[in-house]
Amino acid sequence: MRLYNVHTLKETADVLNNNFSFKTETIHINDAYHRVLAEDVIAEINVPSFRRSTVDGYAVRATDTNGASDTMPMLITDMGSVEMGKVINESLKADQGIYVPTGGMVPDGADAMVMIEYTERFSEDTIAVLKQALPLEHIVGIGSDVKMGEKILSCHQKLQARHIGVLAAAGVFYIKVYKKLTATVISTGDELITSEQDLKPGQVFDINTHTIRNRLAHFDVDVIKQHVLQDDKALIKRTMEEAISKSDITIISGGSSVGDKDYTAEIIDELDDHGVLIHGLAVKPGKPTIVGKVKDKLVIGLPGHPVSALIVLDQVLEMYLSQMSSYKATQVKRILSRNVHAAPGKATFIMVEIDHENAEPIQGKSGMITLMSKAHGYIMIDENHEGVDEGSLVNVTLLD
Amino acid sequence: MRLYNVHTLKETADVLNNNFSFKTETIHINDAYHRVLAEDVIAEINVPSFRRSTVDGYAVRATDTNGASDTMPMLITDMGSVEMGKVINESLKADQGIYVPTGGMVPDGADAMVMIEYTERFSEDTIAVLKQALPLEHIVGIGSDVKMGEKILSCHQKLQARHIGVLAAAGVFYIKVYKKLTATVISTGDELITSEQDLKPGQVFDINTHTIRNRLAHFDVDVIKQHVLQDDKALIKRTMEEAISKSDITIISGGSSVGDKDYTAEIIDELDDHGVLIHGLAVKPGKPTIVGKVKDKLVIGLPGHPVSALIVLDQVLEMYLSQMSSYKATQVKRILSRNVHAAPGKATFIMVEIDHENAEPIQGKSGMITLMSKAHGYIMIDENHEGVDEGSLVNVTLLD
Repeated sequence: MRLYNVHTLKETADVLNNNFSFKTETIHINDAYHRVLAEDVIAEINVPSFRRSTVDGYAVRATDTNGASDTMPMLITDMGSVEMGKVINESLKADQGIYVPTGGMVPDGADAMVMIEYTERFSEDTIAVLKQALPLEHIVGIGSDVKMGEKILSCHQKLQARHIGVLAAAGVFYIKVYKKLTATVISTGDELITSEQDLKPGQVFDINTHTIRNRLAHFDVDVIKQHVLQDDKALIKRTMEEAISKSDITIISGGSSVGDKDYTAEIIDELDDHGVLIHGLAVKPGKPTIVGKVKDKLVIGLPGHPVSALIVLDQVLEMYLSQMSSYKATQVKRILSRNVHAAPGKATFIMVEIDHENAEPIQGKSGMITLMSKAHGYIMIDENHEGVDEGSLVNVTLLD
Repeated sequence: MRLYNVHTLKETADVLNNNFSFKTETIHINDAYHRVLAEDVIAEINVPSFRRSTVDGYAVRATDTNGASDTMPMLITDMGSVEMGKVINESLKADQGIYVPTGGMVPDGADAMVMIEYTERFSEDTIAVLKQALPLEHIVGIGSDVKMGEKILSCHQKLQARHIGVLAAAGVFYIKVYKKLTATVISTGDELITSEQDLKPGQVFDINTHTIRNRLAHFDVDVIKQHVLQDDKALIKRTMEEAISKSDITIISGGSSVGDKDYTAEIIDELDDHGVLIHGLAVKPGKPTIVGKVKDKLVIGLPGHPVSALIVLDQVLEMYLSQMSSYKATQVKRILSRNVHAAPGKATFIMVEIDHENAEPIQGKSGMITLMSKAHGYIMIDENHEGVDEGSLVNVTLLD
């Protein structure tokens, strides 16, 4: 009989860090949503790349407006206007002004903008300036937002809408990112059937392929195949071999314990010298968990219980991905509405319902479906604590 | 000259609710990730659908074990074992026991499970029971998790991994959901160029198609096309007409104000009798925003400033989608690290950086890129408040 080789979450993180690495590729920013940077990103241009007006008005030399006021306007020659998006090559000379719209280019020679509100047409080719302009007023200098060569985003950043906007603004259209990960998801159990089969007494519809597949989507891992298998060692081994050859991560639920029909650890050891790295996590629920390495790919054996499988998957994946991505699951703070007890020496996970203020632990006696349909997230009590008191502020990791 | 027809966010929500509705379709749960239920979901089976053992052990009649103890075991006849996933049709008779693994079916006649730990083999066909079993002990009754016909999920639920697991468990494989929405994204401005063009003085790379397209991905809206257009009314109108005919939502940034080259409102009014429903939001930043209705489709005109566009898009989309989806943007509570001031009579949005405890407002003078690369989210100060004091607990809406 196999024995557990139990690791804490911290030890598991170390094992994952020491055994796995990630490939990179270069992509266009149009394909960058939720991808993870594999290098720091440097601005390729100055932003703005020209002196930009922040107002509609006249570009002038500030000294030409010295002393200007409503009662004592200064007159400048109207040299026409700058068009948006167009370069203005002429240099402004003394006592000249040129109209520049917001965002337009301020011509050389000018060092201030006078807002249109503080000007009046005096004659066909003369403008009266009614207010003294200060040097550099209403002008954004070249590179004042970002300088060419400046770091604008850091390696390991998961790219959201705002980051991709930053890349475009800085003229960076190709970026080095980590390759997207693929997975195969396998559920095992003689009692399991799929949606294509009719339910007979003694059987249950498989849940884990569904929850795991969709939780992987949340982690931006593409599931390329899913299987529901009977507890047939040869069949499971064949399926795992194919899964490992075709995907980066193979996740198999059920059969991860140490009983007669628990084949997962055996198969992982047969497939590779590295084989099983960890068998047993110091967590509750979720002890019967396996982390394995076959052909340098990650294999995760999860408990068959759907809620345990979902929680353990979250922990293992987040640790595994932490080498590439700074992304962390979203946590919200809530007030615990009831005392909860934890298993000493283990990290204990407790499913909770939340509202705007509170986190309500879901009764352990609740049925599995009730638990899964109600739980907005979970709290973790680490191995050094025996529980958390009602009224404590807790961090809830969201499942949604 | 056009005049603003300013609405508060609340008024805007009402306009959106009164003018738009959503189509539905039926899909398989394999395609259900992040889709939104368009009806309550009813369990199609009892869960479990048979009496299920929660332990490895012997199914017995509880009365047959009355008085059993280590020193006074009760003997039962070993009738063999139930296989996982298999039906057991024979009914258990008095003084009989049958082995049932965890999750297996408890045969008729039996009303309790004795854990394997409390049994001993007495002879080839006899088992000694060392502990008295209580009626219904270690048995999950039919429908005790969910009863056939019971509501398991509510209309408007956005489906996450756990919900899809619930559907599978309850035998519900086809569900009615809202159709996925599609969008076309248009940026306008004479100064804008795309990644395919070389930057000349006076020009800037378009940002809004990138930020808007990817923010729509966050809202699970599929962008089918994006355009960067010069301020050419005929071209913009042609492009908008095509966009409106091919997608559910048309989003156009720039040209949403009331100046000479601001064509968006004009075009929306020309394309449909409904036309512009709202021109101007009582928010800061983001006043020059348009909500229009053309051929029953939503048209949103956003300010050209990328940060304003992103914030307003969030507000309008969340209100628009609130009719179909109970989903709300994730908010986290933080302590404000500095006093902030708000525009009276307007909802004011302030970008913030957050850590585990605090929300730090990002200086208004920061460049646009700095703002977008740093801001983890924003806080909103409603129109009835003039600011928020340092040290206050604030809700930060996450942009990530």
